[in-house]
Amino acid sequence: MTMTASPRVEIIAVGSELLTPNYQDTNSLELTRRLNSIGLTVSFKSIVGDESKTLARCLLDASARADLIFIMGGLGPTRDDNTRETLAEVFHLDLEVREDVLKDIRLRFQRRGVRMPEVNLRQARVPKGADVLTNRHGTAPGLWLNLEGRDFILLPGPPREIIPMFESEVMPRLRRRRRGFQRRRVLKIAGLTESGVEDKIKDLYPNEPGLSLTILASPGQIELHLTSLSPDSAEAAESRLDRLSGQFEARLGEHIFSCLGEELEETVGRLLRRREATLAVAESCTGGLLGHRITDVPGSSAYFLEGVQAYSNSAKISRLNVPTEIIETRGAVSPETAEYMARGVMDISGADFGLSITGIAGPDGGSPEKPVGLVYTALACWKGTRVEENRFPGGRKIVKRRASQQALDMLRRHLLHRPDPPDASAGKK
Amino acid sequence: MTMTASPRVEIIAVGSELLTPNYQDTNSLELTRRLNSIGLTVSFKSIVGDESKTLARCLLDASARADLIFIMGGLGPTRDDNTRETLAEVFHLDLEVREDVLKDIRLRFQRRGVRMPEVNLRQARVPKGADVLTNRHGTAPGLWLNLEGRDFILLPGPPREIIPMFESEVMPRLRRRRRGFQRRRVLKIAGLTESGVEDKIKDLYPNEPGLSLTILASPGQIELHLTSLSPDSAEAAESRLDRLSGQFEARLGEHIFSCLGEELEETVGRLLRRREATLAVAESCTGGLLGHRITDVPGSSAYFLEGVQAYSNSAKISRLNVPTEIIETRGAVSPETAEYMARGVMDISGADFGLSITGIAGPDGGSPEKPVGLVYTALACWKGTRVEENRFPGGRKIVKRRASQQALDMLRRHLLHRPDPPDASAGKK
Repeated sequence: MTMTASPRVEIIAVGSELLTPNYQDTNSLELTRRLNSIGLTVSFKSIVGDESKTLARCLLDASARADLIFIMGGLGPTRDDNTRETLAEVFHLDLEVREDVLKDIRLRFQRRGVRMPEVNLRQARVPKGADVLTNRHGTAPGLWLNLEGRDFILLPGPPREIIPMFESEVMPRLRRRRRGFQRRRVLKIAGLTESGVEDKIKDLYPNEPGLSLTILASPGQIELHLTSLSPDSAEAAESRLDRLSGQFEARLGEHIFSCLGEELEETVGRLLRRREATLAVAESCTGGLLGHRITDVPGSSAYFLEGVQAYSNSAKISRLNVPTEIIETRGAVSPETAEYMARGVMDISGADFGLSITGIAGPDGGSPEKPVGLVYTALACWKGTRVEENRFPGGRKIVKRRASQQALDMLRRHLLHRPDPPDASAGKK
Repeated sequence: MTMTASPRVEIIAVGSELLTPNYQDTNSLELTRRLNSIGLTVSFKSIVGDESKTLARCLLDASARADLIFIMGGLGPTRDDNTRETLAEVFHLDLEVREDVLKDIRLRFQRRGVRMPEVNLRQARVPKGADVLTNRHGTAPGLWLNLEGRDFILLPGPPREIIPMFESEVMPRLRRRRRGFQRRRVLKIAGLTESGVEDKIKDLYPNEPGLSLTILASPGQIELHLTSLSPDSAEAAESRLDRLSGQFEARLGEHIFSCLGEELEETVGRLLRRREATLAVAESCTGGLLGHRITDVPGSSAYFLEGVQAYSNSAKISRLNVPTEIIETRGAVSPETAEYMARGVMDISGADFGLSITGIAGPDGGSPEKPVGLVYTALACWKGTRVEENRFPGGRKIVKRRASQQALDMLRRHLLHRPDPPDASAGKK
């Protein structure tokens, strides 16, 4: 790659499944995000099936247009994985088995107590002159070839393999050649809708060159993606970003839960650790999602003690000591039940905080008074309990997601702004 | 378009925003779904920015490969919308203002009580000889051109415009010419690796025209995507699919858990309902993921009673009655603890089945004897308990996912093949 002011970058996604209605190429977005961060933009993307002839033509077309060509997928051991072989054929390269690569593949299987199947031998075949990119999460190594002044980078298709490889093997090489300095920051927001966020910040939208904002919404979360590009230095890019970010922070305040890429469950975990506090959860309609998210964070055993997936009424009664008459008179989906659940799980676990969710995820079970999407979340601590009521739009999975988001955010706001537990009389929001 | 047995179809998505990290081309999935339903498959997709030069080259490349080319986006009134003009330039076509189109555009503005802005005049310019496709939801008409035996179909970018136009203007024309009927089927597999599946079926790979197979792997799950195309009838396509699918089923047997698009948690739910059986879960390292997946299925309250997220040792002891000495002598991650957890949750809940998971999700907590990825799953019923040991590769989230998959599959296999609960003496797998 001749690193001119703007080398042309293309991405080719290989895989017949990507030409069906069922699969999106999401890898290219992740690659683009990272390329953008060092001032590289993508000028073209192709999606091609497993058929070798079409891929061959696509490689030739790309090499006529671009300087830097990323090819994702088709490095697997099976017969429909042809990327390596097709590239070798198109550019008349010899493939040879590299002993070091073969050793790594065998080792991966050995560690799992399995003999390497014969088919995986193919993955050790490398075009002469190619650099091998280590795959820490799979058997297919990546490859980097410079051919006639163009760089071809072959990467595996599975996200869990390609992303770490891109970070550790590709980005350092690209950084060494870069021109221009780009910085990105993501502000993550909970407790506001997309138009709620827009209303608060629309007069702050950047309109100077090199500074950009994109707003992304997902259930229960809005993200502001800020990008700053400077021809001079990383510091200059960073300081413009600081200025823009500061303006948004002044407007959105505590609704911003992260500026450093943290997920909400990580923020909550960090705040719990700082307080040396422990947590237990009681989940009805979310069925385990809240605990699942909390335990996605490495080291969460330091603060997460346990949870109860109290799906049936009898579980709410027997496991969490929700009084039968509360369930009968107020209903399983009620502020009272949510409160008892939070207090119940705090009491049995001895945790500092009890966090509960009860609601109607749908599609059935709704009524005029208690429609699908009605969710109560409650937070208990030694001083009292707080309940919040929400009516979430969306289908079953979306409602579950929003409910878990709401519960986590409730705990976050509490940990952030009330060093002392709330007074029981504070009641509803 | 010469409608041969398999005309080559390509989709080109136009728009610089589709080359950023923030936007996906979702229109092409909707088009593909509809094209597949009449026997047309997509052989290539390109994503190109607003730059006219790149689009021109992309149109030429596509016309060299394909018979039927859909171009989405770039028909708007603003300066960065160039699709119409670029196509006209590439194929030396004259653009002329069509009075009927102009009238329609004016009318749209009139109905909103607004005068048509001057810029919208561009949208009434149509290449000579093109058919106009009515846009009921916006000002940009679609265009259909036959050039040198190839069909170019220009469609607007916004989903609310392109989808209705595709349905009402494009599909009827395609149906009139169609040859061929396509059917698809997805076989989902648990309990085998990708190369394990490959080893069992590689001699069955279809190599007759119109029949195709794609293998997709995700943690704990392999999918075989089968496609069958018949020039004669949907029944013929279906029966070829049945034959191929039958061969795979004979080889892979009970490892196939679904042929109808069902997720594993749905299959398990269906089997539990059929047996009128109930389930409770006890989760350590998965933290709630198992219950979360089970309760993603609408109506799961019919069989899922409750769960315990027994993350801490004390929760295992107090909630599930795992003996303290078992934890102390065998460890929290041991076959014995898994067994006690499954039995414990079955006993307290009164469910017919207790399903448990305990393991080391990482990244910390591993040791030489008990490495990260070691997971025990146990299934208890009134007759006894069965335990399975696995060593899963991958990071924390992958291990959690695989563990939940393994537990669900353990229950599925039991429900499928053992109408009677297993004897306790059956022991380990």
